[in-house]
Order: sequence, then C-alpha cells, then structure tokens
Amino acid sequence: MAGHSAGTEIEQLIQLLARLPGLGPRSARRAALQLLSKKETLMRPLADAISEAADHVLTCTTCGNLDTQDPCSICVDTRRDAGVICVVEHVADLWALERAGANSGQYHVLGGTLSALDGVGPDDLNIAGLVNRTMSGDIKEVVLAVNATVDGQATAHYIMDQLEGSGANVSQVAHGVPVGGELDYLDDGTLAAAMKARRPF
Amino acid sequence: MAGHSAGTEIEQLIQLLARLPGLGPRSARRAALQLLSKKETLMRPLADAISEAADHVLTCTTCGNLDTQDPCSICVDTRRDAGVICVVEHVADLWALERAGANSGQYHVLGGTLSALDGVGPDDLNIAGLVNRTMSGDIKEVVLAVNATVDGQATAHYIMDQLEGSGANVSQVAHGVPVGGELDYLDDGTLAAAMKARRPF
Ligand SMILES: [Zn+2]
Ligand SMILES: [Zn+2]
Repeated sequence: MAGHSAGTEIEQLIQLLARLPGLGPRSARRAALQLLSKKETLMRPLADAISEAADHVLTCTTCGNLDTQDPCSICVDTRRDAGVICVVEHVADLWALERAGANSGQYHVLGGTLSALDGVGPDDLNIAGLVNRTMSGDIKEVVLAVNATVDGQATAHYIMDQLEGSGANVSQVAHGVPVGGELDYLDDGTLAAAMKARRPF
Repeated sequence: MAGHSAGTEIEQLIQLLARLPGLGPRSARRAALQLLSKKETLMRPLADAISEAADHVLTCTTCGNLDTQDPCSICVDTRRDAGVICVVEHVADLWALERAGANSGQYHVLGGTLSALDGVGPDDLNIAGLVNRTMSGDIKEVVLAVNATVDGQATAHYIMDQLEGSGANVSQVAHGVPVGGELDYLDDGTLAAAMKARRPF
C-alpha cells in the first residue's frame, strides 16, 4: 500500500484502517500519517479506546443495543415508556432516533432485514426475541422504524404477521422517510416528524 | 456524539475516530459500529497495529522518512543513487513517488513549506539538515519535488539559495504537476513524467 519504503508495521496499520467504512487506501495512508504525527495525543489514546471498547461493549440480550451493561441503559431506564417498542434494523438507526429524541419508548434491533437475494431469513434476524418481548410483556405498541426499502417493508410485513394476536398495536413510522432512503441518513426533524405521524400498520 | 444511549467507551472511540482525516462524525459512528461487529477480525488487530506502529515507527534522522529503523531502509539501500536527493514536503509525497517508482535516489522530507501566513519559517522545516547533507556528501543533484503551490515554490527558491555553492545541481520536477495541485493526489504516470522532465532550477 505505502510502497516498499514503509515498514511492515505501517503497511499493516494502513491495511486495517482501509477496512473501515469511509476510508479507502489513500485516506487510510493519510490517517496513518496523522496518527504517527500525533503519537501521544491521538495514536495511543485511539489504540486504548479501541481496546477498551472491545473489552467492555456488549450487545444487550434484550434489545440488541450496544452498551457497557446488559441489559442496556435504555432497557433499564424507568423513565422511558416500557409499553412501546421501536423496531430498527441497526444500532446506527437507534442512535439516530435517540439523537433526534424521537422515541421515548424501548427499542428492538433486528440486525438487518429479510433478503431473498442475500439469503437472510427470519432466523438470521432478532425477530423471535421481538415476538417474545411483545407476547410476554405489557406492550401496547410496536413501532416499526425500518427503512423504506423493499426489503425493509417486506420485513415489516413479516413482523406484523408474527405479532398478530399479541394484543399490541403495530404501527409504522410515517412515509416521510424518502422511498429507498435509509434512516441513518435523515435529519432529526424528518425523523421526529415521521415518528409523530406514525400510522397503524 | 452517539447520543446518551451509547456508553462512554463508545463515545470516546467515536470522538477519536472522528479526528482522523476523511472521517466526520457520521462515518466515525459507522466505523465504530463496524469495529464492534468485528471484534476479533478487525477491532483487536487494529488496536494492536496502532500500538505496534506507535512503539516501533521512527522518524529517520537523516531524511525524515518514517520507518522502523533509523537510518531508514531507503537511506541504507546501497542500490539507490546516493548522489541524488529528492526533496519532498511530506512523507505522503515520498510514498507517492516510491509507488510510482519515480525516484531511484535518496529523499529529504521537509515537513511542510515556508508560509508567511501560517508563520512557518526555515527553522520550522528540515532545511538545515538538507543543506548539511548536500554540503558534506557527494551529492550531484538535488531534485525539488515540492508542490506547485505558491508556498511550495517560495520554499523551492529559498532552498536553491541555500544550496548555492554546494556544487550540487538543483533541479525541480517538471511543471506537469498541475498548478495549485498536490503531489500526493497525482497518478503514477504523471509523477513519473514530471520527474523525468525535471529541469535545472
Ligand atoms: Zn437493551
Ligand atoms: Zn532515511
């Protein structure tokens, strides 16, 4: 990557950095140089932060969120509405909704969407956990905040079928979400509006 | 950054990742999630690679290159032309020239350019080292491969003045380098051609 002028340690660093989303080979090289020019203020703190997070960040066995505790801080927060579960595809979507302050209830992270093309079936997603939570708890509403993509909508339909007879109302965020768009790319206002205008599924 | 849903460890990780060039807050969040989803195959190896590089990568006291040995592997490579020094602003430029195979001589990394605006004077750059190398060694040519910017050209003129009487020919990479452009962004062919067509300064 860097040519035969750079040592193996630098090559290895660049190759791993290049695997991060948003960093290609060139920006990985620039990132490596940036790190090496700030060893004490950036490079060692980053190595420590990555190790710390690897050691202490867990997946919440209840909702699928990432946190340093299990159940996560959202699941144990008694100020939140325990009767509402907002279903998202990825943790990034949960973060986006939290930044927007758009959901005062709980969450459930599916881990993706059903996809015939990619061979993703119901057992590959955290759908059974959602059904269990909804059936066993006093859940009055399940809000589907999945992406407005074909796969997202197919997943929403599948989940609605699974939750039939649970007694919970199943709603879906309003289609203010642009068709084909992804939740994580939306501004806070759009997300908040889409949540507010949610309708029965 | 991630909202109050994420633990301090994740926040800290995202904030440090966001300081890398090419990563904003959003891509830093995505990078953090990518790391957490690949703890053993990407996250821990990256933490190790950063630590290893921080521990073992040095700045060559002769030329300013980064390597795990000092003098660096280029400076001690007897197959290279010891009579030619190619002067670059940054290590990234050295890497770019090495990838292009455009320089078979030595290098000298200045660490930037003179800049009245940014208050960068000759003492802030590794110019004295270049003058020493040129005066003391059997240097027959110094090739200035600095950027075709105003500051780069001012730096080239300053260096030429300093090398007067050294006995070395001072040349400059051809102005195939786009005016205002930066070396590190050029394709290998352009870099090789610019080196080949270098002219006396
Ligand atoms: Zn949880
Ligand atoms: Zn060197």
